[in-house]
Amino acid sequence: MKQKTETKRQAIVDEAARLFRAVGYERASMAELCARVGGSKATIYNYFSSKEELFSEVMLKSTEDEFEALHASLDSAPDDIGEALRRFGEHFLGFLYSPEVQATRHLAISQSKHSELGRHIYQRGVLRSQNLIAQFLECSMSAGKLVQTNPEIATRHLVSLLESEFIDRFLFHLPGEVSKKQIKQGTARAVEVFLLAYAPRS
Amino acid sequence: MKQKTETKRQAIVDEAARLFRAVGYERASMAELCARVGGSKATIYNYFSSKEELFSEVMLKSTEDEFEALHASLDSAPDDIGEALRRFGEHFLGFLYSPEVQATRHLAISQSKHSELGRHIYQRGVLRSQNLIAQFLECSMSAGKLVQTNPEIATRHLVSLLESEFIDRFLFHLPGEVSKKQIKQGTARAVEVFLLAYAPRS
Repeated sequence: MKQKTETKRQAIVDEAARLFRAVGYERASMAELCARVGGSKATIYNYFSSKEELFSEVMLKSTEDEFEALHASLDSAPDDIGEALRRFGEHFLGFLYSPEVQATRHLAISQSKHSELGRHIYQRGVLRSQNLIAQFLECSMSAGKLVQTNPEIATRHLVSLLESEFIDRFLFHLPGEVSKKQIKQGTARAVEVFLLAYAPRS
Repeated sequence: MKQKTETKRQAIVDEAARLFRAVGYERASMAELCARVGGSKATIYNYFSSKEELFSEVMLKSTEDEFEALHASLDSAPDDIGEALRRFGEHFLGFLYSPEVQATRHLAISQSKHSELGRHIYQRGVLRSQNLIAQFLECSMSAGKLVQTNPEIATRHLVSLLESEFIDRFLFHLPGEVSKKQIKQGTARAVEVFLLAYAPRS
């Protein structure tokens, strides 16, 4: 078996991305990918153990820069906790409701019963995001800007409130795009509720 | 064309329920259903315009009694708003995370991109539920138990908070059942946050 190289790995990922975009996840086959990349199926399986793993790599990679930028913004968040949460919330929803992330997330959900794709995307996308938000909330608690409590639970409450006005539209493919204005208004309402519960009572 | 009868309609629904349980939604065909019910395809299409419509009828019907009982309980809710919301919340999550409702909801979500099933289930299940909850919250606002505000938004906030600790497990088929104890604890935390935001400031 040939040695694995980063160049070869990248070539597989790039070709898989083109294939998925062209025919969709369900119809993309490892055989077709193999024909496009050149070489044997064994070569591809040497790099990726399954179509699910390869697909989540492709999808997560295509949104990785934006994902990083979104969560890095928490490090330079404004001092005012309300302003920090509103700014993050709008950025977060803008990311989550972009066509590409919506498509990835919906596919992961739809496939989760029959494949590992759901768990891959959950762990490398959703859970990773929640852990970074929880870290930010924990720091804000330590700084006395939020009441001291379980940061993981606070994170679930925050993200659920932020998504509350949009999630059914996403899950059930209801008509109507999520607009910037709706995100701004929904975020303001969600953060208001969150802070009434989590800001220190003075 | 023969006259439609309630008996015939019921026979189709019952047979469809058996077929769906036996082979699953995707593999259930109208041709097979036809063979089981007897008669022509036109007969079935006389009652239901599509497989999606028939399926949502079957699934919603099988949980209709419980759905009714859940929302009727709001009419005899305890006077204490915290107690009322906790009791409803536990009942609501127990219903939503029962195997049958989880299966229906997940299927509706998974199919929503390609068929009308998602919208059927959303309108006749999710939205109907939210409208009934909004009515209850509006009454509670009028009675001075909650601050006066938009009851639809308050409903979205309430149901999202209630589901916040469980929804990812459901959407991504993560391991671990939702237990009664987890529902009780998650509900208490969600209602506490909701009331800190929505109970009148005294």
